[in-house]
Amino acid sequence: MGTPEKVQHFPAGGRKPSARRKQARFMATLCRPSVSVPEHVITMEETLELARRRHTDHPQLPLALRLIENTGVRTRHIVQPIEKTLEHPGFEDRNRVYEREAKSRVPAVIQRALDDAELLTTDIDVIIYVSCTGFMMPSLTAWLINEMGFDSTTRQIPIAQLGCAAGGAAINRAHDFCTAYPEANALIVACEFCSLCYQPTDIGVGSLLSNGLFGDGIAAAVVRGRGGTGVRLERNGSYLIPKTEEWIMYDVKATGFHFLLDKRVPATMEPLAPALKSLAGEHGWDAADLDFYIVHAGGPRILDDLSKFLQVDPYAFRFSRATLTEYGNIASAVVLDALRRLFDEGGVEAGARGLLAGFGPGITAEMSLGCWQTADVRPSVRQGMTRDVSRDATRSVRQT
Amino acid sequence: MGTPEKVQHFPAGGRKPSARRKQARFMATLCRPSVSVPEHVITMEETLELARRRHTDHPQLPLALRLIENTGVRTRHIVQPIEKTLEHPGFEDRNRVYEREAKSRVPAVIQRALDDAELLTTDIDVIIYVSCTGFMMPSLTAWLINEMGFDSTTRQIPIAQLGCAAGGAAINRAHDFCTAYPEANALIVACEFCSLCYQPTDIGVGSLLSNGLFGDGIAAAVVRGRGGTGVRLERNGSYLIPKTEEWIMYDVKATGFHFLLDKRVPATMEPLAPALKSLAGEHGWDAADLDFYIVHAGGPRILDDLSKFLQVDPYAFRFSRATLTEYGNIASAVVLDALRRLFDEGGVEAGARGLLAGFGPGITAEMSLGCWQTADVRPSVRQGMTRDVSRDATRSVRQT
Repeated sequence: MGTPEKVQHFPAGGRKPSARRKQARFMATLCRPSVSVPEHVITMEETLELARRRHTDHPQLPLALRLIENTGVRTRHIVQPIEKTLEHPGFEDRNRVYEREAKSRVPAVIQRALDDAELLTTDIDVIIYVSCTGFMMPSLTAWLINEMGFDSTTRQIPIAQLGCAAGGAAINRAHDFCTAYPEANALIVACEFCSLCYQPTDIGVGSLLSNGLFGDGIAAAVVRGRGGTGVRLERNGSYLIPKTEEWIMYDVKATGFHFLLDKRVPATMEPLAPALKSLAGEHGWDAADLDFYIVHAGGPRILDDLSKFLQVDPYAFRFSRATLTEYGNIASAVVLDALRRLFDEGGVEAGARGLLAGFGPGITAEMSLGCWQTADVRPSVRQGMTRDVSRDATRSVRQT
Repeated sequence: MGTPEKVQHFPAGGRKPSARRKQARFMATLCRPSVSVPEHVITMEETLELARRRHTDHPQLPLALRLIENTGVRTRHIVQPIEKTLEHPGFEDRNRVYEREAKSRVPAVIQRALDDAELLTTDIDVIIYVSCTGFMMPSLTAWLINEMGFDSTTRQIPIAQLGCAAGGAAINRAHDFCTAYPEANALIVACEFCSLCYQPTDIGVGSLLSNGLFGDGIAAAVVRGRGGTGVRLERNGSYLIPKTEEWIMYDVKATGFHFLLDKRVPATMEPLAPALKSLAGEHGWDAADLDFYIVHAGGPRILDDLSKFLQVDPYAFRFSRATLTEYGNIASAVVLDALRRLFDEGGVEAGARGLLAGFGPGITAEMSLGCWQTADVRPSVRQGMTRDVSRDATRSVRQT
């Protein structure tokens, strides 16, 4: 009884040390994420102009405009035209739009993620669906299983309450699942339509800033238990900054989810950096000296401070910054989009070490460490179950 | 690389067979659940009288009354007096009541579960919090970690969208986590205040029935990676009945969650029984011939039909039926309360084989198989980290 040699993680406290060499047995690999952003675009200039027009007499308008400009968000993509986005037709209608748009957009993103991982729907054992910008019960997972032909035995892990940290959480729970069942494959889906949480009556500075920061996006990725090209997940951990559970939260009202952002949030990388360093240290790594960094880009200060407190060149966060600049904060989808950009840059050399992290309400960090892995010659593990699609053919139909 | 001998489960399809003898290595044990129901009680007679008074002219009142009587639910416990419950102060106020009541009631239930498992908060590695009757972001997990002194590194898995199936899902995800990390301990919390989802304007027969069926309750249980007395979890699986995702669902409106129950739901044990049989069969067990059955008591027909389609004596479902009779359908907390009743009956002999299952929206079944295990002489695994509390001393402060 017992397998004391199994991979352990358990970050702070260090009461469960593990030998690093033992971890190579586990090969859960986070494959290329597929990402899609909607067709409606709003630029920084349009955002600023809208803020000026709608809040002419707001005493803190200049501050809000400056904060929005400082985000560096140049464009955002939203599921409806801006005129429609600014209306509030009620929580019920908003949720209907969420459901309609999710059903029309998510399957294609999932299909590309499966194609990129060279797997079929029937190869997937668990779907981890994270989304905090609409609420359905059952979650979209049930519909996806029926619509896309996943096995009836596919596990469903829908998570709505981890906000922007949920992208990291999804990666970590997929990693855990594949650690428990090494032959298994996990599908991660992050579907965030932040524009459907726009609340016209919220006019605090934090809300005005949020109105200029968040964007919409969908991302999906497969964690393969065996094989695959991408990040071979080796260790994960969570960290909650004590007594900060009210810093990022939803006020749940008849008008839907009202996003509350405490002004202390941008400074949270100072208390979180030690948790990242600690996790790396337990893995025998130095958080300041890794080959790639894929982190949630909640805002520009997050990236600047991570650079400062981890003592890492700002260039290392170029993927996350590009997501922020081009898409805005797309909540749980940010980490997957930043990773997609690393893939698009050609990946890194085999064995290169990296850190992934999502940050969100709690304040919670969901952190992961892994090495770049290139698929071996035999791309598929399960005999006769892999679609024969060349990666080049797949690439030609990709949206991003 | 790879551990082909690891526990496999993967129910239907059977493409991933596993040798049963290998599973004894994994010892994740679901310990005694702690359960608490609120102090306000409503009887079947009061429920019927209320229905008669409020729906005097309802054309289907006789049918509704008959359906309510057929539930066999004698008493339910609710977090507010019935007069207050029948008011609808708005989604915002309802959610505030949810938060207030959860914060005031959940910690004591968790503490008892920890005491029963002979663990401290600092021994817990993951909290799986399931609740579909209130919505908070962050979920209660963040507050619990701060309030009760769980480690800052505790994983949070909040699930709001699996409804009544979430109790089974929580057990299964805890099992998975302890399979991935055999030294880990998981805490499961199910907090359901169904009375806060009462919608006065919903007067379909399904709604009138639901108004007489659901109750409030909180349950918590620990899954210990090592040691402990209870159900040693050996295999789990999920099953989604194809094309039934609209049979149990929430209509999300400004007034909150509106529960929709299709009249075909009570008959779903016929398509689900084969999934239960299949899971047992893959484990080398016969679903008709197990020593204990702990299942979600959605309603009386569920239990009657399980008895019929699994060919199991109705007496085997006495724990679930007792929960239904005394508390009503307390959603995700039912399976944990039914298991608590098995413990209260003195448990079963070591090695006795059993099945646990939650059923809910999707339509999803979350199923688990395990053997009764009695703690070995050395109750704790982690040196110096276990509170020295005798089980007798603990028992004296238990509510249920």
